[in-house]
Amino acid sequence: MFEIENKSTQCKARAGVIHTPHGDIKTPAFIPVGTKATVKGVSMPQIHDMQAQAVLCNTYHLYLEPGDNIVEKAGGVGKFMGYTGPTFTDSGGFQVFSLGAAFGNKVSKVASGEVDVVPVDNKNKMAFIDEEGVDFKSHKDGSMHRFTPESSMETQWKLGADIIFAFDECTSPLENKEYQKEAMDRTHRWAKRCIDRHKELDPDNRQFLFGVVQGGRFEDLRKESAKVLGEMDFDGYGVGGSFNKDDMATAVGWVNEILPEDKPRHLLGIGEPLDIVLGVEQGCDTFDCVTPTRNGRNGSLYTKTGKMNIFNAEYKEDFRPIEDGCDCYACQNYTRSYLAHLHRSKEMLGGILCSIHNLRFLIRLCEDARQAIVRDEFQVFKNNFIKNYES
Amino acid sequence: MFEIENKSTQCKARAGVIHTPHGDIKTPAFIPVGTKATVKGVSMPQIHDMQAQAVLCNTYHLYLEPGDNIVEKAGGVGKFMGYTGPTFTDSGGFQVFSLGAAFGNKVSKVASGEVDVVPVDNKNKMAFIDEEGVDFKSHKDGSMHRFTPESSMETQWKLGADIIFAFDECTSPLENKEYQKEAMDRTHRWAKRCIDRHKELDPDNRQFLFGVVQGGRFEDLRKESAKVLGEMDFDGYGVGGSFNKDDMATAVGWVNEILPEDKPRHLLGIGEPLDIVLGVEQGCDTFDCVTPTRNGRNGSLYTKTGKMNIFNAEYKEDFRPIEDGCDCYACQNYTRSYLAHLHRSKEMLGGILCSIHNLRFLIRLCEDARQAIVRDEFQVFKNNFIKNYES
Repeated sequence: MFEIENKSTQCKARAGVIHTPHGDIKTPAFIPVGTKATVKGVSMPQIHDMQAQAVLCNTYHLYLEPGDNIVEKAGGVGKFMGYTGPTFTDSGGFQVFSLGAAFGNKVSKVASGEVDVVPVDNKNKMAFIDEEGVDFKSHKDGSMHRFTPESSMETQWKLGADIIFAFDECTSPLENKEYQKEAMDRTHRWAKRCIDRHKELDPDNRQFLFGVVQGGRFEDLRKESAKVLGEMDFDGYGVGGSFNKDDMATAVGWVNEILPEDKPRHLLGIGEPLDIVLGVEQGCDTFDCVTPTRNGRNGSLYTKTGKMNIFNAEYKEDFRPIEDGCDCYACQNYTRSYLAHLHRSKEMLGGILCSIHNLRFLIRLCEDARQAIVRDEFQVFKNNFIKNYES
Repeated sequence: MFEIENKSTQCKARAGVIHTPHGDIKTPAFIPVGTKATVKGVSMPQIHDMQAQAVLCNTYHLYLEPGDNIVEKAGGVGKFMGYTGPTFTDSGGFQVFSLGAAFGNKVSKVASGEVDVVPVDNKNKMAFIDEEGVDFKSHKDGSMHRFTPESSMETQWKLGADIIFAFDECTSPLENKEYQKEAMDRTHRWAKRCIDRHKELDPDNRQFLFGVVQGGRFEDLRKESAKVLGEMDFDGYGVGGSFNKDDMATAVGWVNEILPEDKPRHLLGIGEPLDIVLGVEQGCDTFDCVTPTRNGRNGSLYTKTGKMNIFNAEYKEDFRPIEDGCDCYACQNYTRSYLAHLHRSKEMLGGILCSIHNLRFLIRLCEDARQAIVRDEFQVFKNNFIKNYES
């Protein structure tokens, strides 16, 4: 399912193609997130227009609403949302993290700088882990549910994405090493159970199952996780955890040194432009993140020189596009002035257009990285990007 | 600027073409409303795709934000919002109504059934009318502003739409006849001032100015208003006021008997399917209303048999389109089940897709009415529509 076309001679970056039943994904690639079977505010012609190669949806959210049975009856998540290209679903494991140990601690997937160690308030947690699986409260109505590795495979089979992920425990950076080790070992036991159940459900392996490497920021744990999972019969790998850009060369790099080279690697939930470039350097092939659409709705726009805030007063009368040379629908048709007006007026088209720009920016960033890898000029590309982006 | 192609032999309905500098509008036509220079949530390719022939924007809102000067610098409201077709702006007169006498009384443009006469609370009014013009408070920040007939023409000249409206006083149905007469006479004096100022600004008459007929539900006032304004040098006419379907044959019909036949007539702020069909019968050519998009955001959908509420439980597992045979983007690509999911999940794509359906429904309704007029079968068309719609 995965072919490597070119490898950088100077780093772990590679250009490849993932073949799926719904089409090819040329890597490196940024995959827009459609949490609830919709990339927020963006319609499918716009998804095609931005040259997105796949969409990643969320198992936890779709399980709760509309329910995996309805999505199955609709013909799977792609058909449900009117998308003909390749689809991913995550495993629901991240919700263990965000509803469980990290709940209420304001820790997100992307750790920004130092994280204060806040004592975990067990009373208010919404997820409870045992060896067999996880009990969790619905964020919608407080009803209790249970995910196990087996049930995650069953739910993802019904959702019907081309690429699915093993059910893992995504630990909080607030946890100590002892807990990280305990969670990692459990994730490995769960990985085996996921493979077993998935083989029963899908003996022809039409749906590709990716294992998820954990281990926090500990070198020995990360390497152990990559080794243990790398030896299992997965079609590809996800690298899970909370990361900032300093983790790319360490946690992500350690893992990719060990994971089998002939299988694709997805860096879960990472979408800052700099993180993507550094993730590609470390041998990651695909990326997903909600930040481009979330930032877009908040008027925060990616450009080659860094982020711009469309609410700045200077943009009210600025009739240039967001970024010269950008081929996105927003830049081709609208001015900063119009976008500033839409955001100030709380008009939803503002968030939509800015989401489209941010998504296209990351998709194009990966396309450019791919071309640089093909020409074996990735280091030059990376250095230029960083120089401009931080200026 | 206006040609009549066919007239019904049985009623006042007519099929025509309005020629504008940005293209032709085949009438009858429903014109989507882009209050703040955006049809809420709908992108321009979607506007074209639904075969909208023009967009109507709001002078009051654009004056306050981003300001008419910015829109003028952008090249006018069409260019600002990336629309190449014909544009309308209303005059701001409706805000006199909604911020003034009707403020806080929950009376909307479309009076539904009997209106309770609520004493007008002058203390809380946000608009104050004198002979020269109107002082009003911004709904955004409470700042005081003033519109006069002259300033409305100046603002609309800067906004640069193809078709603009004279500054009128749209009275509340709560007002008595004495006040309706007073307001109507003032609207007539303002109409003259609008024509004079518009001629100074636009001696070549590139921008078409429509007068607005008022007079509440009083036959003698409506007829007087149509006669007085019909003799003035307007390019077309708006029919203003609060209406329900019973007013079409009376208030609207009285007016259209008198207005010059060779000029287009726009029924302001009316968009219920039945009202449009009855308005066409009474000789109205164009219509605008926020209800298709507002209803769409609330999950209320137009169909040929009446409205459907996408929140009804039965639609959760209904994999049919909203309406068989509808050529809108939503019906061509999505199921009721998906739309129900989006609305229940509060995903903005739900409101967008339902807005697109509702807009296309009204646009197509007018296209169908036009074809029926051309074939001189409008009465059959109308009777069939009413029979199905009320069933």
